[in-house]
Amino acid sequence: MPAPMRKMQPLALTDVRIADAFWAPRIQVNRTVTIPREYELCKSTGRIDALKLQWKPGLPDRPHQFYDSDVAKWIEAASYSLATHPEAELDKLLDEVIALIASCQRPDGYLNSYFTCVDPDKRWTNLRDMHELYCAGHLIEAAVAHFQATGKRSLLDVLCRYADHIDSVFGVEEGKKRGYCGHEEVELALVKLYRATGNERYLRLAKYFIDERGRQPHYFDVEAQARGEDPKKHRAADYRYFQAHLPVREQAEVVGHAVRAMYLYSGMADVAAETGDQTLLMACRRLWGDTTKHKLYVTGAVGARHHGEAFGEAFELPNESAYAETCANIALAFFAHRMLQLEADAKYADVMERAMYNGVLSGVGADGRKFFYVNPLASAGGHHRQDWFGCACCPPNIARLLASVGMYVYSASESAAYVHLYVGGQAKAHVAGKTVALTQETNYPWDGDVRITVRPEAPAKFDLMLRVPGWCRKHKLTLNGEPVKAPVVKGYARIRRTWNDGDAVELSMSMPVERVSAHPSVADDIGRVALQRGPIVYCLEQCDNKAPVRAVLLPDRARLRARFDRRLLGGCVVVEGGALAVSPAGCGGELYCDAGCLTTKRVRIKAIPYFLWDNRKPGAMTVWIPRA
Amino acid sequence: MPAPMRKMQPLALTDVRIADAFWAPRIQVNRTVTIPREYELCKSTGRIDALKLQWKPGLPDRPHQFYDSDVAKWIEAASYSLATHPEAELDKLLDEVIALIASCQRPDGYLNSYFTCVDPDKRWTNLRDMHELYCAGHLIEAAVAHFQATGKRSLLDVLCRYADHIDSVFGVEEGKKRGYCGHEEVELALVKLYRATGNERYLRLAKYFIDERGRQPHYFDVEAQARGEDPKKHRAADYRYFQAHLPVREQAEVVGHAVRAMYLYSGMADVAAETGDQTLLMACRRLWGDTTKHKLYVTGAVGARHHGEAFGEAFELPNESAYAETCANIALAFFAHRMLQLEADAKYADVMERAMYNGVLSGVGADGRKFFYVNPLASAGGHHRQDWFGCACCPPNIARLLASVGMYVYSASESAAYVHLYVGGQAKAHVAGKTVALTQETNYPWDGDVRITVRPEAPAKFDLMLRVPGWCRKHKLTLNGEPVKAPVVKGYARIRRTWNDGDAVELSMSMPVERVSAHPSVADDIGRVALQRGPIVYCLEQCDNKAPVRAVLLPDRARLRARFDRRLLGGCVVVEGGALAVSPAGCGGELYCDAGCLTTKRVRIKAIPYFLWDNRKPGAMTVWIPRA
Repeated sequence: MPAPMRKMQPLALTDVRIADAFWAPRIQVNRTVTIPREYELCKSTGRIDALKLQWKPGLPDRPHQFYDSDVAKWIEAASYSLATHPEAELDKLLDEVIALIASCQRPDGYLNSYFTCVDPDKRWTNLRDMHELYCAGHLIEAAVAHFQATGKRSLLDVLCRYADHIDSVFGVEEGKKRGYCGHEEVELALVKLYRATGNERYLRLAKYFIDERGRQPHYFDVEAQARGEDPKKHRAADYRYFQAHLPVREQAEVVGHAVRAMYLYSGMADVAAETGDQTLLMACRRLWGDTTKHKLYVTGAVGARHHGEAFGEAFELPNESAYAETCANIALAFFAHRMLQLEADAKYADVMERAMYNGVLSGVGADGRKFFYVNPLASAGGHHRQDWFGCACCPPNIARLLASVGMYVYSASESAAYVHLYVGGQAKAHVAGKTVALTQETNYPWDGDVRITVRPEAPAKFDLMLRVPGWCRKHKLTLNGEPVKAPVVKGYARIRRTWNDGDAVELSMSMPVERVSAHPSVADDIGRVALQRGPIVYCLEQCDNKAPVRAVLLPDRARLRARFDRRLLGGCVVVEGGALAVSPAGCGGELYCDAGCLTTKRVRIKAIPYFLWDNRKPGAMTVWIPRA
Repeated sequence: MPAPMRKMQPLALTDVRIADAFWAPRIQVNRTVTIPREYELCKSTGRIDALKLQWKPGLPDRPHQFYDSDVAKWIEAASYSLATHPEAELDKLLDEVIALIASCQRPDGYLNSYFTCVDPDKRWTNLRDMHELYCAGHLIEAAVAHFQATGKRSLLDVLCRYADHIDSVFGVEEGKKRGYCGHEEVELALVKLYRATGNERYLRLAKYFIDERGRQPHYFDVEAQARGEDPKKHRAADYRYFQAHLPVREQAEVVGHAVRAMYLYSGMADVAAETGDQTLLMACRRLWGDTTKHKLYVTGAVGARHHGEAFGEAFELPNESAYAETCANIALAFFAHRMLQLEADAKYADVMERAMYNGVLSGVGADGRKFFYVNPLASAGGHHRQDWFGCACCPPNIARLLASVGMYVYSASESAAYVHLYVGGQAKAHVAGKTVALTQETNYPWDGDVRITVRPEAPAKFDLMLRVPGWCRKHKLTLNGEPVKAPVVKGYARIRRTWNDGDAVELSMSMPVERVSAHPSVADDIGRVALQRGPIVYCLEQCDNKAPVRAVLLPDRARLRARFDRRLLGGCVVVEGGALAVSPAGCGGELYCDAGCLTTKRVRIKAIPYFLWDNRKPGAMTVWIPRA
């Protein structure tokens, strides 16, 4: 394999300690409420017990082909949590679940509770639909996370054996199946396994799955025919749904099921990073461009359509009917994070931040107990978080993201330390051959002042790269209290010097309330603005507003004021001001009337961070507000 | 039965001759293109041949349970056409198809090609899902239409036997099934059969189906259990989808599948009309109110949701994702027409007109060859009329509506002649014991001037009731050239006098271009206007406009001018003026930008009647235009 080409690497989760007023309390709720609760739900819904392989035809609660992946994501979340917050009881519980998983493994290494128990003769006969490699991928991610958190090889060894088995089944070599999964995931997981073990077999296997995808003769056709089915009768017969309509390097357009797409592109970026494959990198750049220029919600959400949980056409971004699955938004952050390491360009961090602070965080309620699967940007009042889902991908996905936020904050290269996100706490980076401690103090995202103290183990010359967010139009930087020259290179203010113990940098980002417009090709947002302050996108929620929030018009000149409300949902900045509301009085109770009869009245509005909506009294909500 | 209570009756189709520039050419296309073509499609898709009962298990093209209804609606359309435009060949073709239908009838009177051929043991075992009585209803409507057009009893007698059979199977009497159809239709059909034959048995049966609906124990539960199924596992387990969640007199909210709902309410109005049932009339009024005050598109379309082809919540009227099925819009016109006869209130005619001139007519292309099933109020450019549909309810439905437009124009009572719609041509009414010929001369809907000449066989005293449309804010009336006093009573200008041969009334309705607003609770229309002139709702279609039509903003003061374009799609009034379009230039290619960066430019816009869109180059379309 050629040399890897990523420009930097994220800091290990264990090297980052988050201690701030924004993420730390959310990580705590995740650790103390969400993770235990999701274990209980995996248990009570049969997901854990499915691993006992005791189900028999005729018994109720037949295991489902997704179950392993839900348990795996829970293990991954719990492992990340253990990495930053050791807990003996959780450690023990993980050991128990891992023992169950290990007991599931067949002598040949195969490991899937559904097929082993329910359909043992159907192994690897329907990669298109049955999520078999998808489940394997999540188990591998879990194994790597558990190994890195605990140093234990108990799950890692099991999954290496399974990966070895998969490698013996799939590939271009004579006698192997030339298959790949209908739901991408195993590709990025195998790169993680490669990085954790150093075994190039896993990287080659990841690359094989990526390279093979979409080739002709089409594997989904071949295996459907082998099952005696007409492949053309499948609901997604052109395979765009699976991003398998073309070889991945020929794909220029983001299509199909959004979670699958984002997991695939993440795996492509990983393989490109490790192999230096330029054609793969170019495909990633094209797909990134299509995503962010045409198919991204202002909340950092993706996948507009309910039908097929899929991307729509360019600029097809409906608000009320947005699908914007929590998993897709998380997966977009994954893709962004990987592209960021490859390209050292803050444009990736901008999208990563937009997703994490808005469309990802909205996925879980403030109490850590309820979840959005679907994240619309407007609601008539009927959309609410749920305890759990039959297809329960989102709740453990957000749990693993929250438990691993530390990984997204910094990166380091040979010669530079990067700060991508402004999150109070400490970190330990290895730069220029030295260990460098970094301390961030900030009240971000509620204000834009950040103080970073640098403590190298000995004076060290390196670049400190501080992201100047895309939303930020004015920033100031000082070093030890003095203005400092810091050219902005691909979105990062670069301070190049020999750093001494206690050097302090202060970054001050101006953070006014901004009115954002969408490209006029987004028909659903035409004549409307969204409110954003720093990375936070706002919404009007009914319980804060007397006027029906979807009848509010916002004059361009209306003054909007940001105010920190420490009592609201753990403390947040709200945006308040004057606006107009269309009154129904002129209609005389009719559905349609002469436009001249409608009148508006002055109202006060209060907007809250989008991610915090639906935590109080149920009601209507809107992100995009018509201009008066 | 108590005495009937309707206030007036529509004129018979054979008593109305349409000779104008608007409907006559459309009726001609319907007669010469659509009806022959639909026969060919019924033939080539196996709908006609299914009546031969030759299908056997193992053969391809298994007949479908809807097939009889499609053929029936074609017969109904062809019969109406024959009533106004006798054609020997069509008459003969009808005789052939009717002979086939008659040959399908079982000795006991039962008549359904699907059950007889495909599933003979399942007769009347799944009324909820299998459309058995629905097909019967359409056949009955066809039989009545054929009888009234031709005087032949060939189909009528067959359907009387079938109706007698149905009456022997269903009812409250011991030994009968207490069932009713999951898809309402037979109720209104049986009232037609009663009116055509005078046989009260059919009216009683219609009333039974209406009265029984939604009662407990619920028949759909009972029959599901008899089939060994769990009724709770049905996708529409609460039966709102079928308007069977409550007895109809307790229903206050318009819910579920829109076509079913409108057919049911039409049947309820019919039964109320014939029986004088006040509680049923009150239910009809409530359901009418909920429809028109909360759930009606400005195009006269109903049924907002794709999911379940159903009504949404109050004010849930999305534009691009509107379902607004052609059949539902037609069925709304049916309901309106019935309520109009009952209540003599022009508010019903207003909605009937809104539907007929907009959301109904949009259902068929200008060439009579392509059909909308779904009638959205905005499109990104991907929505187009189709040749036919697997579920082909809409094409023959619009054919029967167009062939019978004459029935909607006038009504007569003992003492009054009503003009509901302004359509050039002649009519013959029986009023005040006399035969009165009426001649309308008008270029409606393109202008608002109407001349009506009255020719009673002898001088006759009666009220001439001329509808003053709800959209009309200024009208003038003259009688024989002199201003005349005509109080407006429930939306009708009443001229009460003794009419002499040649008396001429001139009605002049002012018809400016109007900006219409929706009630501010319609979130999707907030800050937007629709353009309407007379009864015609306009849209911006891309092929008429340089600026992207969905990026157009319309200043309140922009002057809009109506102009008759005789070359456009057979001639129509277009609306032109100045507007603004948001330019993408300020975005710099980004999806989101500071609202201040977006600029607008002055553009000319041209709007065409909504019903005429998608007859030229495919492109985007919008009805509701944001205000600048």
